[in-house]
Amino acid sequence: MIYQGPVKLIKERKNIAILSHVMPDGDNIGSCLALYNALIKLGKNVVIIQDDDVPEIYKFLKSADKVVKPGGDYSIDLVIALDCGDISRLGKSAKYLENKDIINIDHHISNTKFGHHNIIDTNASATAELVYELINKLEIILDKDICECIYTGIVTDTGQFQYSNTTSVTHQIAANLINNGVEPAKVYKALYQNNSISKMKLIGKALSLMEFHYDNKIASIMLSKEDFESLGAKDEDTDGLINYARDIKGVEVALLFKETYERKIKIGFRSKDYIDVSKIAQKYGGGGHIRAAGATVDGELNDIKEKIVEDVINVF
Amino acid sequence: MIYQGPVKLIKERKNIAILSHVMPDGDNIGSCLALYNALIKLGKNVVIIQDDDVPEIYKFLKSADKVVKPGGDYSIDLVIALDCGDISRLGKSAKYLENKDIINIDHHISNTKFGHHNIIDTNASATAELVYELINKLEIILDKDICECIYTGIVTDTGQFQYSNTTSVTHQIAANLINNGVEPAKVYKALYQNNSISKMKLIGKALSLMEFHYDNKIASIMLSKEDFESLGAKDEDTDGLINYARDIKGVEVALLFKETYERKIKIGFRSKDYIDVSKIAQKYGGGGHIRAAGATVDGELNDIKEKIVEDVINVF
Ligand SMILES: [Mn+2]
Ligand SMILES: [Mn+2]
Repeated sequence: MIYQGPVKLIKERKNIAILSHVMPDGDNIGSCLALYNALIKLGKNVVIIQDDDVPEIYKFLKSADKVVKPGGDYSIDLVIALDCGDISRLGKSAKYLENKDIINIDHHISNTKFGHHNIIDTNASATAELVYELINKLEIILDKDICECIYTGIVTDTGQFQYSNTTSVTHQIAANLINNGVEPAKVYKALYQNNSISKMKLIGKALSLMEFHYDNKIASIMLSKEDFESLGAKDEDTDGLINYARDIKGVEVALLFKETYERKIKIGFRSKDYIDVSKIAQKYGGGGHIRAAGATVDGELNDIKEKIVEDVINVF
Repeated sequence: MIYQGPVKLIKERKNIAILSHVMPDGDNIGSCLALYNALIKLGKNVVIIQDDDVPEIYKFLKSADKVVKPGGDYSIDLVIALDCGDISRLGKSAKYLENKDIINIDHHISNTKFGHHNIIDTNASATAELVYELINKLEIILDKDICECIYTGIVTDTGQFQYSNTTSVTHQIAANLINNGVEPAKVYKALYQNNSISKMKLIGKALSLMEFHYDNKIASIMLSKEDFESLGAKDEDTDGLINYARDIKGVEVALLFKETYERKIKIGFRSKDYIDVSKIAQKYGGGGHIRAAGATVDGELNDIKEKIVEDVINVF
C-alpha cells in the first residue's frame, strides 16, 4: 500500500532527480544507481545529484559515472531522496527539493518524513531493500546491473549480513539478486579487496601501538599527525579500524584517538555489550549511539587519551 | 532421491556415530552438532567422535561439550561422516568405520565416495547445507539450536556469504534459519569478536613488516620464530593473515613466510585473479588450489623468501 502513491507518481512524471546524503556510503550509492538504472529502462530522464564524489570502490557499479554535483539547472518534475534521514543531510543538493514533489525512501529511525510520499521502513536492513521493492512494484525487469547495485547497498549496510538489521527478508532478496546474475565473489572483490598500501600500514601501526586498560576491558588506539604523515595515510584509511580493538576477547570499550592535520583530536567510541558510549561522547560535545559514538576536541593527544580512559573506567 | 536411502537407514538404526575431519573448522563442527542435536530429538543414541578439540569459538553451539575423542568402545550400528573428502582425513577416528554401514555427506569435489550411501553435492556452499536438507527430509522440526549450528557452518565456509560457493540456495537457507530463531549478530559476535590480543599484535607486526615486490603486484609477510615468541603468539593466530596482503589494490600474489618453533618455514600462497600458485607450491613439495596453496620447507627465512619471490616473478 505504501508503494501505491509513489508508483503512480513515478509512472506519471518524466524528469526525475535522485538525491541522497553527503559522505556517501554503499547503501547511498547502491540505492541511487539501482533506481537510476531502473528508471532509465522506463524511458525517464534521470539525474543523480550528490555533493560528494562517488568513492572509488563503488565505481564498478553501472552508471556510477552519471552522478553529478549540485549547481546545474535541470527541469525536474519529481525528486526522490534515498537513504537520507533529514533534509540537512542532503547538503547543497537539498535546494533541488524546492517546490518539487518529493518521494522520501529510507530506513533510518530518525527519518523526519520530509517527503510528500514517505516509504520509511526501519525494519529494512538497507534503503536498497526498499528500492528493490519499489522496482518490483514498478514492474521493471531486474537485470544484473540493477541487482549488483542493490546487493552492494545491502552488503555494506549489513556488514556482510552480520549486523542485527539482517533479516530473513534480507537473505531472500539476496537469493533473488543472485538468481538474477549477481556474483557475490565479484562484488566482494570490488568492495573489500582494493585496500591501499597506506591503509594496511596504518592498521599495522595502530595494532602495534594498541594499549589496554582496566584489566583489558578497554582497548585504545592513538594515531598522531606524524603517524599519518609518515605513512602517507588519509583520514578515511581509519574506516573500520576501531573494530579491530572492539573485536578482541574481553574488550568492552574500544577507543580511537586521531590527531588530524589541523591538530584536532577526533575520538571514536565503540562498545560491545553493555557500556553506553554515547553518554561519554556527549560530555565532550559529540554524540552517536550507545554502541558507537564520536567527538572532536582540542588538546594534546596523550592528555586527551588519559582523560577519556579515566572517564570510561568510571562508567564501568 | 539421493536422500531416500540415508533417511530410511537413519530411521531404522538406533546407535549412530558422527565423524568428521581432523583440524575442525566451522562447517565440520556446525554440521556435526546440527545433526547430533537433530538425531537426539528422534530418540537416537548419538556420539560425535573427533581427533581434535572443538575450537574455543564454536563452544557456544549446543552440545559442543558432547564431542569425544577416539578410543572409547561404542555399540554403533551406523556411521555418518560429514565434511570429509576421504577416510584418511578422519585421523584416528577412521577406525569407527570398520564393518559399519556408512553415510558420507560432503561438498568437496575431491570426495572419494567412501560411504555405502553418499550425499555429495559440490554445489553446496557447506556440508551444513546438506545436513539442513537431511534434517528436513527426516521431518525433524528445526529449533534455534540446530539452526545456529547450520548457520555457523554456512557462514564460516562461505566467508560470510562472500566466496564464489555462495548461491541463492545458501541465502534461502539462511533466511529460513533466521525465521527459526538465528540472530546473525549473536553468531557473528561469537565467531568474530573473540580475537586474542596476541593475534592482533601479530597482525600489527605482520602488516608493519609487509614488503612489496615487482611493482607492488606481490606482497610478502615474513614472521620469525622470535616474532611469535616476543608476542606470545600461536601458529593459529596467523589464520586469515595472508588475506590482508592479497586484498590490497594491485596485489596479485600474496606470500606468507612463517618460521615455526621447530625452525621449519611454512609458506602460504594466495592469488587474486590469474596466477596459478599451486604450481609454485608443488615445486617446493607442497600443493593446493590455483588461488590458495602452501608448502613447508627447511632453510633460512630470508633466503627462502627471496627465492620464492623470484619464482613468483618468473611466472608473471
Ligand atoms: Mn542505509
Ligand atoms: Mn565444508
